[in-house]
Amino acid sequence: MKIKYELKHKDQNSKARHGILHTNYGSFETPIFMPVGTQATVKTLSPEELKEIHSAVILSNTYHLWLRPGEDVVAKAGGLHKFMNYDGPILTDSGGFQVFSLAKNKKKDIVEEGVHFKSHLDGRPLLLTPELSIQIQNKLDSDIAMSFDECPPYPVTYEYMKQSVERTLRWAKRGASVHNNPNQSLFGIVQGGEFADLRKWSAEETVKLNFDGYSIGGTSVGEDKKTMYQMIDDSIPYLPEDKPRYLMGVGDPIDIIEGVIRGIDMFDCVHPTRLARHAHAFTRHGKINLKNAKYKEDFTPIDDSCDCYACKHYTKAYIRHLMVAEETFGSRLLSIHNLRFLIRLVEELREAIDQDRVLEYKEEFMKTYYTKES
Amino acid sequence: MKIKYELKHKDQNSKARHGILHTNYGSFETPIFMPVGTQATVKTLSPEELKEIHSAVILSNTYHLWLRPGEDVVAKAGGLHKFMNYDGPILTDSGGFQVFSLAKNKKKDIVEEGVHFKSHLDGRPLLLTPELSIQIQNKLDSDIAMSFDECPPYPVTYEYMKQSVERTLRWAKRGASVHNNPNQSLFGIVQGGEFADLRKWSAEETVKLNFDGYSIGGTSVGEDKKTMYQMIDDSIPYLPEDKPRYLMGVGDPIDIIEGVIRGIDMFDCVHPTRLARHAHAFTRHGKINLKNAKYKEDFTPIDDSCDCYACKHYTKAYIRHLMVAEETFGSRLLSIHNLRFLIRLVEELREAIDQDRVLEYKEEFMKTYYTKES
Repeated sequence: MKIKYELKHKDQNSKARHGILHTNYGSFETPIFMPVGTQATVKTLSPEELKEIHSAVILSNTYHLWLRPGEDVVAKAGGLHKFMNYDGPILTDSGGFQVFSLAKNKKKDIVEEGVHFKSHLDGRPLLLTPELSIQIQNKLDSDIAMSFDECPPYPVTYEYMKQSVERTLRWAKRGASVHNNPNQSLFGIVQGGEFADLRKWSAEETVKLNFDGYSIGGTSVGEDKKTMYQMIDDSIPYLPEDKPRYLMGVGDPIDIIEGVIRGIDMFDCVHPTRLARHAHAFTRHGKINLKNAKYKEDFTPIDDSCDCYACKHYTKAYIRHLMVAEETFGSRLLSIHNLRFLIRLVEELREAIDQDRVLEYKEEFMKTYYTKES
Repeated sequence: MKIKYELKHKDQNSKARHGILHTNYGSFETPIFMPVGTQATVKTLSPEELKEIHSAVILSNTYHLWLRPGEDVVAKAGGLHKFMNYDGPILTDSGGFQVFSLAKNKKKDIVEEGVHFKSHLDGRPLLLTPELSIQIQNKLDSDIAMSFDECPPYPVTYEYMKQSVERTLRWAKRGASVHNNPNQSLFGIVQGGEFADLRKWSAEETVKLNFDGYSIGGTSVGEDKKTMYQMIDDSIPYLPEDKPRYLMGVGDPIDIIEGVIRGIDMFDCVHPTRLARHAHAFTRHGKINLKNAKYKEDFTPIDDSCDCYACKHYTKAYIRHLMVAEETFGSRLLSIHNLRFLIRLVEELREAIDQDRVLEYKEEFMKTYYTKES
């Protein structure tokens, strides 16, 4: 069965919307933030811990699983859910972004067939094509697969971006034509960089292919925040109301709020777990660095209003000690906290949508949230 | 309140004994294996996970906590239990072994006052004395503290060992004289190397000081197995029946069985968690290396008779993938399994003691347990 998007409520003062996405592994409310489990595990965490923080859906990376352990191993295990013991919905990306960002020495050769590049693990030459990406995802048996797109850096010329959008459309058709998994939905990706007419054209042409959902790509590739928000504004009006919209690779709290206001339903980012491994924690007053000496004898939780396992049972002083002593239980506690922070954020945003007060919520949030780390 | 040892049953065919140790943080049955939480955390695991594997008591290292975060930070947090959110009994070692094994460049200067050495973290000069070790442990507020002893390498001359045993006795008295924590019990340590008369003398003189329990030190320092078992045999007869006996740093399954047969009640070792980080798992057929290619498509648990979380939910293929991909969730699953393996072993040994069949249990265990890794 394919996913189904059900609209619950639209905010009267913005494009924000509260919906439910029904999948074969349960339904979850949107807007949602998806923790990233790159290599079939959300770094340091168990599936039970993901449930405890009310994580509803996770993302896993096709590129990484293709290289290790290989999609055939995952298929023989009975698919990604069984392989990693996760019975909630899983979205897989196409590998496109990784090919462009992780290829050894960042060298790659984009041809009509696909992308030639070298493995970031052992340097061996590889070719990823739109068909292969979909075939791998079919075998991984995720609930939502993504089309293989070209993800150009920022900025590129208008002429380059136009050709790239054309190629991404051809690749989207090729991928869809080999898609062969009745339990897996397939999303199309809108590209077009900062060029409003290309975003419109990319969105309209992609929608014609009738995907199960749409994502906005080409963000978080070096552009400033204002440009990113503009990219969303230039894409959303051309996407259908009855399908979910996904902003890829975005996990900054303010970006999530701005995205929701602009009509985005789904977000993902490695940010919260990566920050955790570097001893950073989200708080309502901005990010803090637990390695800071001022926390050495701070016997209060990271955030006393937070309901996560880390905040209920551990102090900043203890977590600081763990991080200074390079104990992975510290990263685990911070991963739990940072993910829960973003999931609470989307929970509050859904409540604000129901009350038609998302814009007020943003104002309130911004009053205490400083972008400077302390 | 001090700990209290209650004898439940003695095996009729060996020196093995089944008892209960009552502490301020609950009672636990002996023989017991204690997971090691060197830096106030059992590597990769939560306190809840320790309870789930029926871990009853853990060990933490005075030397490490002295250097980081410092015993005063732990004291200000309300002691080690509160600092690390662990409400079960905790034993701290004296730091003696670490000073001898971890000192930078292994250089140290043993004088009557204590041991001069350099920090393994930053090379700064340090002096650990019998009094300081006890004072640190008093502040850590563990349930059981250990006397600061000299732990000579193997082998040393009879003359050296005799002088060392004398010094360890003087140090034991000095430590006991400053011990000042009514809720903390204090153990003495029997030394004497492989010299039977020195073991006897060390045991008798240490027992005269009336400690709350006794440990057998100077094992696992390079001697062969037969010599280690002999060291136990040469010490146990001189230890009182009404106090617990602890064999330090021993965690090999066969050594635990041999120790229990010789009258040991408590064991600890970093072995199970260290093996886990190197992708090794205990099984009833010996240790296996999960990185071995033969497990790539092995969709069975590590041990299908094991009741641990890892064996109930994950396959060798998945854990292998995690370890190859350097995901810490793999070490976590293997740590859970390896610790549970040793805790099940002591559970079974206790049952065998009650049935006066410890020697038969050993025979049965050895039938399938190969010391060679596969």
